[in-house]
Amino acid sequence: MVYITRKEHFNSAHRLFREEYSDEENLRIFGKCSNPLWHGHNYVLQVTVKGELSPVTGFVMDLKVLSRLIDEKVLQQLDHRNINLEVAFMKGKLASTENLAIGIWEELEPGVCSSGSILHSVRLEETENNIIEYFGNK
Amino acid sequence: MVYITRKEHFNSAHRLFREEYSDEENLRIFGKCSNPLWHGHNYVLQVTVKGELSPVTGFVMDLKVLSRLIDEKVLQQLDHRNINLEVAFMKGKLASTENLAIGIWEELEPGVCSSGSILHSVRLEETENNIIEYFGNK
Amino acid sequence: MVYITRKEHFNSAHRLFREEYSDEENLRIFGKCSNPLWHGHNYVLQVTVKGELSPVTGFVMDLKVLSRLIDEKVLQQLDHRNINLEVAFMKGKLASTENLAIGIWEELEPGVCSSGSILHSVRLEETENNIIEYFGNK
Amino acid sequence: MVYITRKEHFNSAHRLFREEYSDEENLRIFGKCSNPLWHGHNYVLQVTVKGELSPVTGFVMDLKVLSRLIDEKVLQQLDHRNINLEVAFMKGKLASTENLAIGIWEELEPGVCSSGSILHSVRLEETENNIIEYFGNK
Amino acid sequence: MVYITRKEHFNSAHRLFREEYSDEENLRIFGKCSNPLWHGHNYVLQVTVKGELSPVTGFVMDLKVLSRLIDEKVLQQLDHRNINLEVAFMKGKLASTENLAIGIWEELEPGVCSSGSILHSVRLEETENNIIEYFGNK
Amino acid sequence: MVYITRKEHFNSAHRLFREEYSDEENLRIFGKCSNPLWHGHNYVLQVTVKGELSPVTGFVMDLKVLSRLIDEKVLQQLDHRNINLEVAFMKGKLASTENLAIGIWEELEPGVCSSGSILHSVRLEETENNIIEYFGNK
Repeated sequence: MVYITRKEHFNSAHRLFREEYSDEENLRIFGKCSNPLWHGHNYVLQVTVKGELSPVTGFVMDLKVLSRLIDEKVLQQLDHRNINLEVAFMKGKLASTENLAIGIWEELEPGVCSSGSILHSVRLEETENNIIEYFGNK
Repeated sequence: MVYITRKEHFNSAHRLFREEYSDEENLRIFGKCSNPLWHGHNYVLQVTVKGELSPVTGFVMDLKVLSRLIDEKVLQQLDHRNINLEVAFMKGKLASTENLAIGIWEELEPGVCSSGSILHSVRLEETENNIIEYFGNK
Repeated sequence: MVYITRKEHFNSAHRLFREEYSDEENLRIFGKCSNPLWHGHNYVLQVTVKGELSPVTGFVMDLKVLSRLIDEKVLQQLDHRNINLEVAFMKGKLASTENLAIGIWEELEPGVCSSGSILHSVRLEETENNIIEYFGNK
Repeated sequence: MVYITRKEHFNSAHRLFREEYSDEENLRIFGKCSNPLWHGHNYVLQVTVKGELSPVTGFVMDLKVLSRLIDEKVLQQLDHRNINLEVAFMKGKLASTENLAIGIWEELEPGVCSSGSILHSVRLEETENNIIEYFGNK
Repeated sequence: MVYITRKEHFNSAHRLFREEYSDEENLRIFGKCSNPLWHGHNYVLQVTVKGELSPVTGFVMDLKVLSRLIDEKVLQQLDHRNINLEVAFMKGKLASTENLAIGIWEELEPGVCSSGSILHSVRLEETENNIIEYFGNK
Repeated sequence: MVYITRKEHFNSAHRLFREEYSDEENLRIFGKCSNPLWHGHNYVLQVTVKGELSPVTGFVMDLKVLSRLIDEKVLQQLDHRNINLEVAFMKGKLASTENLAIGIWEELEPGVCSSGSILHSVRLEETENNIIEYFGNK
């Protein structure tokens, strides 16, 4: 079993808030991250996949294939987008980095699985000091 | 003459567009950066000041003082804000990183000057691959 | 279960040595790290906490709260301090990065626990090439 | 149990290809990485070792000793070398980063073991976006 | 006048040597960098362009256009190539990072000029510790 | 004229204070950096040298030679040392990063000059946010 990781980037806008709360209540809970006029981040995404080596290629999974899968399933939905308003898999969810990491896992898992590998983790840096990691529903 | 640099960070939303153009025209010129629902960045700001060393402190300018000046004049206006809608010194300007760097220079210059030093440059990374530097009006 | 990490920094002086050994003996075992007149580092600390997501906030634990906890329990004791002479939880211990990571774990664990989350790991970089990680007493 | 990591670097040339395939077939499978005239990388290697703390030194294993072991067993074979043509432990293997990480594990494992510690992982970055990690044959 | 920088990467093989010298003589002068079986690097390229801001876009030069120019003129010749054997603009030259930076300048200068901006510098990192910068023939 | 930079690291202890002032006065001026029991840093040093290319080597100056010069003249005095107490060229000076950069320039300048090149700048990072650069006495 070998673990391979592909690192990608996307830049998005978001806001932390609950619709049923007032702006004051959201400010109390989420601080400046609840600004109603949005703010944004350069997210750094690391996707780790594990599996046996292919005897033909010496790869777990071609990292270019993994990169393309991440682009199709994740980056095209998120990059230069508003996470609260434009991302189908985040509809109705709080736009926390935790929920975003779980959502990205669910977008990627079927494609990694059908390639014959196992999705191991999704790691998401909102800033270089704030990092979320999700290992699936276990 | 010695040069000192303070590095700071802020996270903002913005959009590249001209009000007088249609969304299609803005898309043609600015690409996905013109998304009407915003996107954002973790900006990295480096402010460089030059001057003679103080014989008392061995400093050009106390970097904690420079950090406080950047916080008061720049970060409080920009961090977790919408650059197009909420930042006084960007009103009526295109929210390009170039214009942002020039605006930050103008916000900082009087304070650096009145501390007895010379503002040398404002360097702004929008992403780690896109960097703007401004050395003042010369 | 989701994992969240907060990265912090502190700058300290230390020395590797055993009081019962001569300077020569300490030099033989610890090399230049035993210099009796001290040396120091910019330590990079990463604290990882795991737990379920709060249905209210979408957070495992508010990273600002974790940051404040690290500041109160760890940074105020260590930053700009002499690890051998000034840090209560290191009294009587060798000031190795290993012991420092274990000590930081013990300072943080009660606070993380009483917030309803689980402390997963303490990762400490002494330099970018020398890294220690501790997952608790198991 | 504490985990310690030493980071090292080496610069090598390599090529991804199978001898029994034509250049066209290799190009189809491995893309530009199969260029017959080679290309190369600045590899970043992280070796993680785990164990109990020595009561004498407060170390799991002296990181200078680990660094020397990596130098003798790995860097002297790989640094400024052609991985396909000059590295004994890669003879007859595809020069994928996966195989390289497994090979480095096998070169290091006896030395770490005889020092009384346990080799935990070998992590190899081919580029900052492509990362392989191996935890041994389990 | 504002300065804009685009950062790009390429991975190549090379060798430092003079054809008219023996392998021993090359080894004496260039050390392990003269290995006849090649080695390679992940080069980091930073291209800085200066100019006035366009009143339409707020840009000195669209960084996507600069990125495309670097790709066409430089990366397609260098990435996953052997610098000594496959790069037209390095024919007959020693493959030092200095000569490579000068060669990249000459490849880029006409395109930057015809875009209405001024090429200011080419900065090339061979490793993170070895950096070359060229400001043109002045 | 081409510019070459070598990056090196050293880890030292220091304290900002004036002997003629009380601890309270030093605390008022220098803050926690005046702690009488020291603190320390992982300094990052970048030395830039400029010159014409040698027609034999294609180098301005062999970066391994520059690295050795920095090691002999600077690192051996500073690494794992107390800057206030053990570094000859800092005797009687405030241990600010500014004074340290000037001192390093003076240690290196004769050796760079006698190699036939010109010392262009000494850049010293005390932390990743606090950076000093010195271009000589002009």
